[in-house]
Amino acid sequence: MTSPEDAAREEAFARCDRFLFGHGPQRPRAVLADLAEETGPDEEPDLYGAGALIEGFEREVAALLGKEAVVFMPSGTMAQQIALRLWADRRHSATVAFHPTCHLEIHEQKGYALLHGLHGHLVGERSRLLTLDDLRATPGPLAALLLELPQREIGGQLPSWPDLEAQVAWARERGAAVHMDGARLWEAGPFYDRPYAEIAALFDSVYVSFYKGVGAIAGSVLAGPPDFIAEARLWQRRHGGNLVQLYPYVLSARANLRRRLPRFPAYYERTQAVARVLTAIPGITVKPDPPQTNMMHVYLHAVAEPLMEASVALARAERVLLFRRLLPTGVPGVVVFELPIGDAADALTDDEIGAYFRQIMATAGETREGVRI
Amino acid sequence: MTSPEDAAREEAFARCDRFLFGHGPQRPRAVLADLAEETGPDEEPDLYGAGALIEGFEREVAALLGKEAVVFMPSGTMAQQIALRLWADRRHSATVAFHPTCHLEIHEQKGYALLHGLHGHLVGERSRLLTLDDLRATPGPLAALLLELPQREIGGQLPSWPDLEAQVAWARERGAAVHMDGARLWEAGPFYDRPYAEIAALFDSVYVSFYKGVGAIAGSVLAGPPDFIAEARLWQRRHGGNLVQLYPYVLSARANLRRRLPRFPAYYERTQAVARVLTAIPGITVKPDPPQTNMMHVYLHAVAEPLMEASVALARAERVLLFRRLLPTGVPGVVVFELPIGDAADALTDDEIGAYFRQIMATAGETREGVRI
Repeated sequence: MTSPEDAAREEAFARCDRFLFGHGPQRPRAVLADLAEETGPDEEPDLYGAGALIEGFEREVAALLGKEAVVFMPSGTMAQQIALRLWADRRHSATVAFHPTCHLEIHEQKGYALLHGLHGHLVGERSRLLTLDDLRATPGPLAALLLELPQREIGGQLPSWPDLEAQVAWARERGAAVHMDGARLWEAGPFYDRPYAEIAALFDSVYVSFYKGVGAIAGSVLAGPPDFIAEARLWQRRHGGNLVQLYPYVLSARANLRRRLPRFPAYYERTQAVARVLTAIPGITVKPDPPQTNMMHVYLHAVAEPLMEASVALARAERVLLFRRLLPTGVPGVVVFELPIGDAADALTDDEIGAYFRQIMATAGETREGVRI
Repeated sequence: MTSPEDAAREEAFARCDRFLFGHGPQRPRAVLADLAEETGPDEEPDLYGAGALIEGFEREVAALLGKEAVVFMPSGTMAQQIALRLWADRRHSATVAFHPTCHLEIHEQKGYALLHGLHGHLVGERSRLLTLDDLRATPGPLAALLLELPQREIGGQLPSWPDLEAQVAWARERGAAVHMDGARLWEAGPFYDRPYAEIAALFDSVYVSFYKGVGAIAGSVLAGPPDFIAEARLWQRRHGGNLVQLYPYVLSARANLRRRLPRFPAYYERTQAVARVLTAIPGITVKPDPPQTNMMHVYLHAVAEPLMEASVALARAERVLLFRRLLPTGVPGVVVFELPIGDAADALTDDEIGAYFRQIMATAGETREGVRI
């Protein structure tokens, strides 16, 4: 399965102790030991979604989001299909609208259609935020509009607050519910500079994740009106997500949310600084510029193989990892990687980051002389 | 939500340190600390179902079941709906047959129908094993027959090996696939006295759980032919069960399966002894008698409230817990509880168990004098 080159690369990467992205390696043994430490000795396991531990955390997140009811779910895939199914049943329409890069459209093997019989109407274009004009061009009855805040596949972009309000108003006028894919909602706080509850208040239902920026093992919640969440629990059971015990995820979500939520403004500021450093280097651009959250897409105008070789050499020499993989952009000679900034970047100064990228771009450029693109 | 009586009862139960059933209390802090201990320092997390940790465990279980392919899933609800959906698609029939007390029928909010459009044909009667005659009375095309080994809702009963072979042969002749609900398959080993692979070989697909007798936090596998399991992975993603990280469940399943699988014969023997002790007490019967696995249903010919009061008094005096709840049987003056025997019973001698039950039956009997049934 794994080529010798891949194995050598992974070995070099595994020895790194400084990382530009995320929160650093989270090996199971250390994560579980930490989690045990943070768990009260008398805390009892949950049982099929009930118990003080899981219910207490649900209330904590409900308060943060300003929603009446919340249910903890193992995954966003489950939470969002259920949300849209419920709005579809309530609106007597099977049509739900979302952006072409919506997680339901590209990462879930069309579960929304195959399990729930929903029709996904794609709004707008893949490479940019959707607009009010895109929405106005949507024909027919509509059960729900899903808006992803921020939009991962376009570098974590966010609509302006007035644009967001206008899009929500359009959906309401059409009689559609508005659902937030807030997988990375925590990352949107600094940009809007409003409490999460104020952002969530625009939406009828909200999904948020705990494993992305928050860095938990896995887990999510779906938030909304009490009757909606009560019915969501039935669908969670149908999906096979009402596990006998969810506490490893709940405890991890609770500990990491409390630990990291106050840090998102700092991640955001650092991301601005890193973007300035990177865009000062010839051959590097970022999207969006400036970043609107603590993530961005970084475009390297160079060829993938020599870049990977240079980054492996850097990993061996400095035990520093800048990116784990490079993706094609469709544009010859340009590759891209997703860069989420978290705790790990604290171990690197802006000057170091700049120097490392100059180094790999230069090395890749030299190697490229002999490469036919 | 909780009445003062319930709270007082739970408090008395929470102070117990000896238990007749299961493996004893599994508080999250201790479970997670143990799990960290049993995890290698260099073991890496799984990522969306891939990685050495989860794949290695899948191979371990595949070998145990003698099946070519295995996929780890968070729940049996998910695994079994997917299995039946796949057989239905392959057989071009939406009808699947199972016992009236099948988990899909009574515990999953009809997910099989609402998510997968399957029709569940109920075979046989609630209070006994299904028979070949029951199957022969099943009309029309059939995609799959589900057999639960052992059958939880009737006290863990198992068909004889020849009966099982005949039922499987009937399904095959009908062109139906045969799926095993092996939630408690590990418990069936001593009764059949055959390797698990030999039992599993009768079936086209097999689901087994790790949280029941094995005592893991949660988790299960679905086993079957490679193309079937490859497609099951797509449906797992659709269900929202292809979690970014499943390692708490995988590690817990691995550790507890290795620890407890060799102990099932001892649990089985102890269950026989406990059944003999209990059935020697006037007013107590068990189903099945003798037990066929390390579980049984225990019928107490007494009234629930005084029995619970007596068991709370016993819990306070001796810190021993015999059962957590009593269920109605529909027969006035008779209640029932499910008794799975595991590690916890090691802390109690047969004589103690007999004495405690005699005591609560006597106390409940005295109290009953003044109670109108």
